[in-house]
Amino acid sequence: MRHDGRRADELRPVRIERGFTEYAEGSVLVSFGRTRVLCTASVEESVPPFLKGTGQGWVTAEYGMLPRATHTRTPREAAKGKQGGRTLEIQRLIGRSLRAVVDLAALGERQVVLDCDVLQADGGTRTAAITGAWVALADACDALVARGVLEASPVRDQVAAVSVGLVEGEVLLDLDYAEDSSCDTDMNVVMTGAGGFVELQGTAEHGAFDRGALEALLALAEKGIGELLAAQRESRA
Amino acid sequence: MRHDGRRADELRPVRIERGFTEYAEGSVLVSFGRTRVLCTASVEESVPPFLKGTGQGWVTAEYGMLPRATHTRTPREAAKGKQGGRTLEIQRLIGRSLRAVVDLAALGERQVVLDCDVLQADGGTRTAAITGAWVALADACDALVARGVLEASPVRDQVAAVSVGLVEGEVLLDLDYAEDSSCDTDMNVVMTGAGGFVELQGTAEHGAFDRGALEALLALAEKGIGELLAAQRESRA
Amino acid sequence: MRHDGRRADELRPVRIERGFTEYAEGSVLVSFGRTRVLCTASVEESVPPFLKGTGQGWVTAEYGMLPRATHTRTPREAAKGKQGGRTLEIQRLIGRSLRAVVDLAALGERQVVLDCDVLQADGGTRTAAITGAWVALADACDALVARGVLEASPVRDQVAAVSVGLVEGEVLLDLDYAEDSSCDTDMNVVMTGAGGFVELQGTAEHGAFDRGALEALLALAEKGIGELLAAQRESRA
Amino acid sequence: MRHDGRRADELRPVRIERGFTEYAEGSVLVSFGRTRVLCTASVEESVPPFLKGTGQGWVTAEYGMLPRATHTRTPREAAKGKQGGRTLEIQRLIGRSLRAVVDLAALGERQVVLDCDVLQADGGTRTAAITGAWVALADACDALVARGVLEASPVRDQVAAVSVGLVEGEVLLDLDYAEDSSCDTDMNVVMTGAGGFVELQGTAEHGAFDRGALEALLALAEKGIGELLAAQRESRA
Amino acid sequence: MRHDGRRADELRPVRIERGFTEYAEGSVLVSFGRTRVLCTASVEESVPPFLKGTGQGWVTAEYGMLPRATHTRTPREAAKGKQGGRTLEIQRLIGRSLRAVVDLAALGERQVVLDCDVLQADGGTRTAAITGAWVALADACDALVARGVLEASPVRDQVAAVSVGLVEGEVLLDLDYAEDSSCDTDMNVVMTGAGGFVELQGTAEHGAFDRGALEALLALAEKGIGELLAAQRESRA
Amino acid sequence: MRHDGRRADELRPVRIERGFTEYAEGSVLVSFGRTRVLCTASVEESVPPFLKGTGQGWVTAEYGMLPRATHTRTPREAAKGKQGGRTLEIQRLIGRSLRAVVDLAALGERQVVLDCDVLQADGGTRTAAITGAWVALADACDALVARGVLEASPVRDQVAAVSVGLVEGEVLLDLDYAEDSSCDTDMNVVMTGAGGFVELQGTAEHGAFDRGALEALLALAEKGIGELLAAQRESRA
Repeated sequence: MRHDGRRADELRPVRIERGFTEYAEGSVLVSFGRTRVLCTASVEESVPPFLKGTGQGWVTAEYGMLPRATHTRTPREAAKGKQGGRTLEIQRLIGRSLRAVVDLAALGERQVVLDCDVLQADGGTRTAAITGAWVALADACDALVARGVLEASPVRDQVAAVSVGLVEGEVLLDLDYAEDSSCDTDMNVVMTGAGGFVELQGTAEHGAFDRGALEALLALAEKGIGELLAAQRESRA
Repeated sequence: MRHDGRRADELRPVRIERGFTEYAEGSVLVSFGRTRVLCTASVEESVPPFLKGTGQGWVTAEYGMLPRATHTRTPREAAKGKQGGRTLEIQRLIGRSLRAVVDLAALGERQVVLDCDVLQADGGTRTAAITGAWVALADACDALVARGVLEASPVRDQVAAVSVGLVEGEVLLDLDYAEDSSCDTDMNVVMTGAGGFVELQGTAEHGAFDRGALEALLALAEKGIGELLAAQRESRA
Repeated sequence: MRHDGRRADELRPVRIERGFTEYAEGSVLVSFGRTRVLCTASVEESVPPFLKGTGQGWVTAEYGMLPRATHTRTPREAAKGKQGGRTLEIQRLIGRSLRAVVDLAALGERQVVLDCDVLQADGGTRTAAITGAWVALADACDALVARGVLEASPVRDQVAAVSVGLVEGEVLLDLDYAEDSSCDTDMNVVMTGAGGFVELQGTAEHGAFDRGALEALLALAEKGIGELLAAQRESRA
Repeated sequence: MRHDGRRADELRPVRIERGFTEYAEGSVLVSFGRTRVLCTASVEESVPPFLKGTGQGWVTAEYGMLPRATHTRTPREAAKGKQGGRTLEIQRLIGRSLRAVVDLAALGERQVVLDCDVLQADGGTRTAAITGAWVALADACDALVARGVLEASPVRDQVAAVSVGLVEGEVLLDLDYAEDSSCDTDMNVVMTGAGGFVELQGTAEHGAFDRGALEALLALAEKGIGELLAAQRESRA
Repeated sequence: MRHDGRRADELRPVRIERGFTEYAEGSVLVSFGRTRVLCTASVEESVPPFLKGTGQGWVTAEYGMLPRATHTRTPREAAKGKQGGRTLEIQRLIGRSLRAVVDLAALGERQVVLDCDVLQADGGTRTAAITGAWVALADACDALVARGVLEASPVRDQVAAVSVGLVEGEVLLDLDYAEDSSCDTDMNVVMTGAGGFVELQGTAEHGAFDRGALEALLALAEKGIGELLAAQRESRA
Repeated sequence: MRHDGRRADELRPVRIERGFTEYAEGSVLVSFGRTRVLCTASVEESVPPFLKGTGQGWVTAEYGMLPRATHTRTPREAAKGKQGGRTLEIQRLIGRSLRAVVDLAALGERQVVLDCDVLQADGGTRTAAITGAWVALADACDALVARGVLEASPVRDQVAAVSVGLVEGEVLLDLDYAEDSSCDTDMNVVMTGAGGFVELQGTAEHGAFDRGALEALLALAEKGIGELLAAQRESRA
């Protein structure tokens, strides 16, 4: 039994609220328990310089955290004048994860920007962001189809993410902040609807982990991601 | 009749949702129609250098806008590496407005930071921010009293704000984005519960305005602020 | 009687020295007592991106303060690597004030940049800057006419500014630094030659102010601005 | 047979040159084929703020790339005024990897900074950096013992890293730049001398990878890291 | 005969106007022809970190150019967010030149900051700045003596600077902008009242210069600096 | 006899190692004793904006120092977010020195960037950089000829640099860090193969120096540069 009453292999309550804001082509407030991330998808009729004239599109992400998303206030990155390493690392991860399931040629020479802003942070913000951003992205692509810009959505598959960890020898699914802070190994897993791995990032916070632990962590992640993929489908049904 | 069906002297629907997030000492999601601003109050047991050792406290504000709060995406200030002039101007205004009703000596040598982050922008974000931030601030100060840190709240009065404007010769209350973009004169008015002016910022976007227009604008602002002060009281009842 | 011997409704000695430097299309050293601001107008044959191809021109301003313009040295903004909020706020105000009296279409697709650099600061730097910058702008536009670039000056009216304030219940015109530091309410008023308001920025530094005080402040500002407009005309006679 | 004549499970020639520069407490030029990284370890008698007074030490890393380390010149980060996301991500990875094998309490309240500067980049710069930095770190800690500052080295185990990847269905060890650019899946693996995983970062560049591929990649990484650990030991023999 | 009617060995009209602004401990407007630099000396009762506790003082300089000091407008460094290489180079030169004639131990643990801001630039801004800044510095030190802070001025000698150059084979003193732009070799010379060299910076803009040219340039510089030293003494008489 | 056993007029051992890295068009590791600088020349088929369309080329330089090139670690400029004044000053000097011997019209509308990165610093890094960068530049230009891009090398002459200094009344050639730190006067001299001066930068660190000392310093510099020019020729033989 975990400190919040969950079983080891249990996700926190997942909530995917579409249309949370009105202007973005896709807008999703995703919650993994207390972690709440607003994911908006913005379609722009331009691409980064390295794609100009190629006919190919791009999907990218930016990540931010409101200063008081956290237990104690974190200084605002805009006021500090730069984004931290953690922020850059996470937004690169979100972008790569989404691009893995989009046919960029089919998107055409335009860009979809996913802004993932954490309103409240209780662990797992990056995995919630990927899971929610996919829904926003899919909605934005559907809107392009509905407006007649594209014939079919360039989104080829779902993608979702979850964290798993080793806490005092036990394998846990979807760590909250308290568990994340005390775990020995922490792994973020990103998988497609078809069951393939897109990203795997495991870190031994204390000591190291072995092949057996890795197997157990991956099995748990697969279970969790299966449920998240279902939640994504349900939200768009 | 205005484009959204309001009378000239009518506010947009006002909603003040306390406790929108869980960690901040005060957390309010305020809506003026489609404009939605998350205001959190964070208590910090330290003060800016110029107040160290004076026994006096401080109240300050930071303002931000999520990239897709707007109709088309606005670049993220953290990614650009600096806050724009408009952002700095607004956060200075919010801070001054709130300090006007707080007894800083009674607050003691600590600081309350109000983070006002715009989730959706449809005009009037600064006035919504001031109105919502006051509730978050009052809640945070009550929490200090409840925790026994202070004997009484240092908040001496309410403060709220509204915009008024001249659009094609007509005086309108609480402009939305479309009205704000086309108005001739735009004025932001900040008033206390006791009915005094704290800030008055009027700008003639095209041409100039005269004393008569000013009188009409101020009368309308007083009416609107009266209703906002009532909404603040109701939300905390 | 004020600390420097002025009456309550008396401006400090105003001096408008045209041609203070030789290269700018307009160059004015304006003094409001000890406050001295060098205002230069530079004509550039380009416009900001949002105006490209529209045939319309632009007027903008930048503001700076020499490090030892003040009683104690202020760190140089160029060395700190950014302009402060106060600087940005003031330069936005100057730009808006001047644009209010210029026919931007008649200016043609070119830009006039007003650089307002404070050589000595004793309160009222922004109002002196607006008052002096108008003269530099008018001179620069006259130069465009003299050079045959424009048929007539696009400057449609004068614009000038003054501060007024409430100090211990008394209404004072054109506050110097000492008065500004101790005042209860401080208001900057920008008016056209035709007597209309362009900007009104009132701030209650302690407490709030009422309609009666506002009336008195505006009346005093009108008087002061009348004298400044006369000084502008005289300087260009 | 790979384009440079290597077998699929073959490392590039590894060279670990200690004492490449003279001032640092540890200084290693590590080469993985054409990839060459200068790793210096600097001992500083201070710690980051969050460790002050705890008696505990810290190990951290910074990563940089000379502008012409690459095939075409990359702009200098110091000239651009900020470190990119890739740089920050890599230096965070190096720091975490090294801390995993150091007893920070035994290090005492001091810091070892590992500077990993890439003189030439042909793929695998981060894995070469970790592998070389460990030798520099171990040398620096030995120097602290030799100088009598510490009784024993706080370095508890070795740590080394290698990349593995899937290129056209084949599993390859230690990718060079050409292989890395064309691979489907790329994984960086960090392991201790005792055979545990410290970091695992796998990315599917195109599509996704499955459990079988993961097993094969990990097996290959273990083989390669075994050889790198041997090279480390040999270099310090 | 030069384009402005000067002989080859003739300075432009030199004017040293003390007390140009009122708050600084020393304030000098120096003119070398059309080049005009405002030099203020600010005494601060603190020193840079590397001098704390040593009992020794410091003299440093900052340099800036108003945007329209030049023939065409130069972007404001504060707006660009950094000082350029030329600015940093010049302010380092000014600081070193002044420190050469100050007894830093006798100054005591305080700092004098010389702000040299160019109001109008027509070549030779750095040499005018050094020449004017010495007067401001000497005045500020005299003020410390007058206030009883120091028993005697720590300024041990005068220091002044001039440029010399080779233009079409001719050796010219005190180049203006037009001459500076077309010269083959340009040399800035800083000398003390006692006739020693403090700084010598010669640059061949096209080709190279030989020993003979160097001799001629130095002789001319000595002559010019003699006159500048006299102008400094006169201004303080 | 100097502290490292050299005679007053003796250079440290000079080593010029061409082809130190493989990708750059020119790549030289130059050593002046313990000072070691990696100089790479990169050819880019573009020029700075001010040269676009002129048919003329450009040669520029960037300078950097690895954090632990020095006796104690120096903070990384990329991490601090800006290049210091010393860095900018040195890279401007290197660029000017090299341009003095290149026929920019003959180079054609392309740019050669010299990156001079200090791997180890023991005084004289800028003079070593100039001396080594010339070899890298000459190699890169030869490569352009070999590739048939240019008919002949636009490099018209050699250029090399050395420092000389006055230490306790004695004139010394090629100061190392210890000598540089304790010298009274320090001069960097840049000369062409034909024996002309390109740059002369002399600084009196304590007091001033006279004509006699200058003569002695220049004579010594000429001798040293003669040897460096020979070493350059030899390295390219």
